[in-house]
Amino acid sequence: MHVVIVGGGFGGLAAARALRRARVRITLIDRQNYHLFQPLLYQVAGAVLSPADIAAPIRSILRRQRNVAVRLATVAHIDLAAKEVILADFERVAYDRLIVAAGARSHYFGHDEWRAIAPTLKTLEDAVAIRQRVLLAFEKAEWAARDAERRRLLTFVVIGGGPTGVELAGTLVELAKHTLQRDFRNIDSRTARVLLIEAGPTVLPGLPPRLQERALRDLRDLGVEVMLGKPVESITANTVVVGGDAIEAGTILWAAGVKPVPLAEAFGVPLDRGRVVVEPDLSIPGHPEVAVVGDLACFRGDDGKPLPGVAPVAIQMGRHAARNVERALAGQPPLPFRYHDRGTLATIGRRRAVAWIGRWQFTGFVAWVVWLFVHLLAIVGFRSRLVVLLEWAWSYFTFQRGSRLIRRERSDHTPAGAL
Amino acid sequence: MHVVIVGGGFGGLAAARALRRARVRITLIDRQNYHLFQPLLYQVAGAVLSPADIAAPIRSILRRQRNVAVRLATVAHIDLAAKEVILADFERVAYDRLIVAAGARSHYFGHDEWRAIAPTLKTLEDAVAIRQRVLLAFEKAEWAARDAERRRLLTFVVIGGGPTGVELAGTLVELAKHTLQRDFRNIDSRTARVLLIEAGPTVLPGLPPRLQERALRDLRDLGVEVMLGKPVESITANTVVVGGDAIEAGTILWAAGVKPVPLAEAFGVPLDRGRVVVEPDLSIPGHPEVAVVGDLACFRGDDGKPLPGVAPVAIQMGRHAARNVERALAGQPPLPFRYHDRGTLATIGRRRAVAWIGRWQFTGFVAWVVWLFVHLLAIVGFRSRLVVLLEWAWSYFTFQRGSRLIRRERSDHTPAGAL
Repeated sequence: MHVVIVGGGFGGLAAARALRRARVRITLIDRQNYHLFQPLLYQVAGAVLSPADIAAPIRSILRRQRNVAVRLATVAHIDLAAKEVILADFERVAYDRLIVAAGARSHYFGHDEWRAIAPTLKTLEDAVAIRQRVLLAFEKAEWAARDAERRRLLTFVVIGGGPTGVELAGTLVELAKHTLQRDFRNIDSRTARVLLIEAGPTVLPGLPPRLQERALRDLRDLGVEVMLGKPVESITANTVVVGGDAIEAGTILWAAGVKPVPLAEAFGVPLDRGRVVVEPDLSIPGHPEVAVVGDLACFRGDDGKPLPGVAPVAIQMGRHAARNVERALAGQPPLPFRYHDRGTLATIGRRRAVAWIGRWQFTGFVAWVVWLFVHLLAIVGFRSRLVVLLEWAWSYFTFQRGSRLIRRERSDHTPAGAL
Repeated sequence: MHVVIVGGGFGGLAAARALRRARVRITLIDRQNYHLFQPLLYQVAGAVLSPADIAAPIRSILRRQRNVAVRLATVAHIDLAAKEVILADFERVAYDRLIVAAGARSHYFGHDEWRAIAPTLKTLEDAVAIRQRVLLAFEKAEWAARDAERRRLLTFVVIGGGPTGVELAGTLVELAKHTLQRDFRNIDSRTARVLLIEAGPTVLPGLPPRLQERALRDLRDLGVEVMLGKPVESITANTVVVGGDAIEAGTILWAAGVKPVPLAEAFGVPLDRGRVVVEPDLSIPGHPEVAVVGDLACFRGDDGKPLPGVAPVAIQMGRHAARNVERALAGQPPLPFRYHDRGTLATIGRRRAVAWIGRWQFTGFVAWVVWLFVHLLAIVGFRSRLVVLLEWAWSYFTFQRGSRLIRRERSDHTPAGAL
């Protein structure tokens, strides 16, 4: 039996690993050669970690699992009738069972023109681009000719008050107030403004109100200006209009939303906000041999609400889809999926976090330590754990950050006019 | 007195640091925000180290030196008569003393059309691009439809037998024979061919013959096919023609030469192969207030030969130029420069190197340990030293490499047709 897995994120990788003892041949297809530990992506954007610290080659992770072949390719379409995955180069890969874990991408709610102005944080390239834009803003401010220009360059706006927005705002404000404070001669980096704009009434929607309030207080303590209940009306190169007010900002970052990849449309089944509405066993209607897992799947939990697009959901779904493949091999019917919620965590800068684990709610330093260990243990590979631990320790004690590089285009081709 | 330093490489940084107690105001201008430890660049190309491991922000290195302001900008020209440096955005920066340490770039000996086909290793972007090309070659070979195609993709040609070419060939052959050997299912990465082509009669020109012979033997032991005495006649997308033979190769890398940046022409003084022929005190003829140091300077040593473009030369020159600035402040005449040669080192893959230090010549493991410590101690910053040591230890004991990422363009913009 040939199992094809599309996507090497949390869901796809969990599915592949869960099939390690199954008598199947697996092909895992991803358009990147690496698995990305997305929960720490904001630390690459904040120059704390290097891209290689939170990403490992998929084929290296699965090196010892001899029943998996890894293929670097982009999936363009899925031919359900022929049971074939169609790659971008028109090659067809036949499958007996298919697990689709292709994930989500950023979403600008119909304002795709904002994409170029307000970069988002979804991929490693995004994180490096944000790092570059933020560091360049300080470099330009240091030599800005006019005060107004300097103030504009030192204003950073983060749009979206979910975990990504909160973590991004926290890391930016600490970069300005601590890391960079002695590096400049003409500006005081501590005068930088970091604004977090959320359309809804609270940050971290989905968490208990007590933790939301604590997160809000922690953010404000750190120096983040949080604006709640105000949707963004327009974004231009240097201005965000929110609640009728125009905010001049040199850097505008988008953390307001994601939507599933367009591949969801390939199934020809009902979608819920772009996500594939799956059967109780995670298969798609009429195709028991195809499972959809992770951010791409819309699955309603015990409370009737769709499960959130987070790593634990994707991992449990991936494992479940694998289990149903094994059951099919043994001639058994598929089992329905059930999500076991182990908790939610969000960090707010150095030494502060909020955590909701089972019946317990943690805040402050304790939550931060929990956050630290959960993430350190979840990251793939012994080497990454060591390097990340070392980087965190170094940055904790020195307030410095290890990866403050502004990378350009390739070398000698750089036009003389750059900056 | 305002001292302007152009370039934050080994020469410029050494000059700035040597002036830390001088009563001068310093502006250090570089088109990158970081100082790059070039001797380890090949390890980024070989996926051992991350870019951030060998690069540190210049303004962070000079954080405590309050008399330096760092400026991220490209220098377009120098107006010697007006004593002004002209930036790419036409802004002018006036100086009393100028130290130019703008370095070199890769050189294709009149074949600039080879640049796109055979990337070179001079900048961090180059190193990442080479890493990407090499890793992609293996990915494509794994799924190549025909044998000839697979063989071509698994052939790597390095042009140039200097230290960069030798180190690059050594790291590539070990990547293929050790690191990747268990990662693929359809190919045996150990069958990859690595060719090192040198036009001259020997590798590592400039070293004593005994060390050249040992380096050659070590390279061949590792599995590198070394071709000596044959200049490259032509390079096309998939073929290198050398000595009348056409070699089909999926990856062609250029390590054959560098030349100074075009800024050298700004001085209107005689050049020697693009390098500024400096006075005994490193100043340029007729302008005692301007010093040129590092790869950009042509200075003849005790043996009448121009000093090589290596880090120790640049560092000593930078310090000397700084000393002459201090002497000028004190009303003293400048001193002539003299180079103290402390040795040469080149590594040939894991556990082997050749070293020539004072009267001693080392080879094999001993030379490699010397190489390791010299480089570890020379790298800027305690953090980098720790991280690099950890990465080396990990890669030494596991044969794995920490930075095997194939990075693409930014995120959602990726065309579906990529690969």
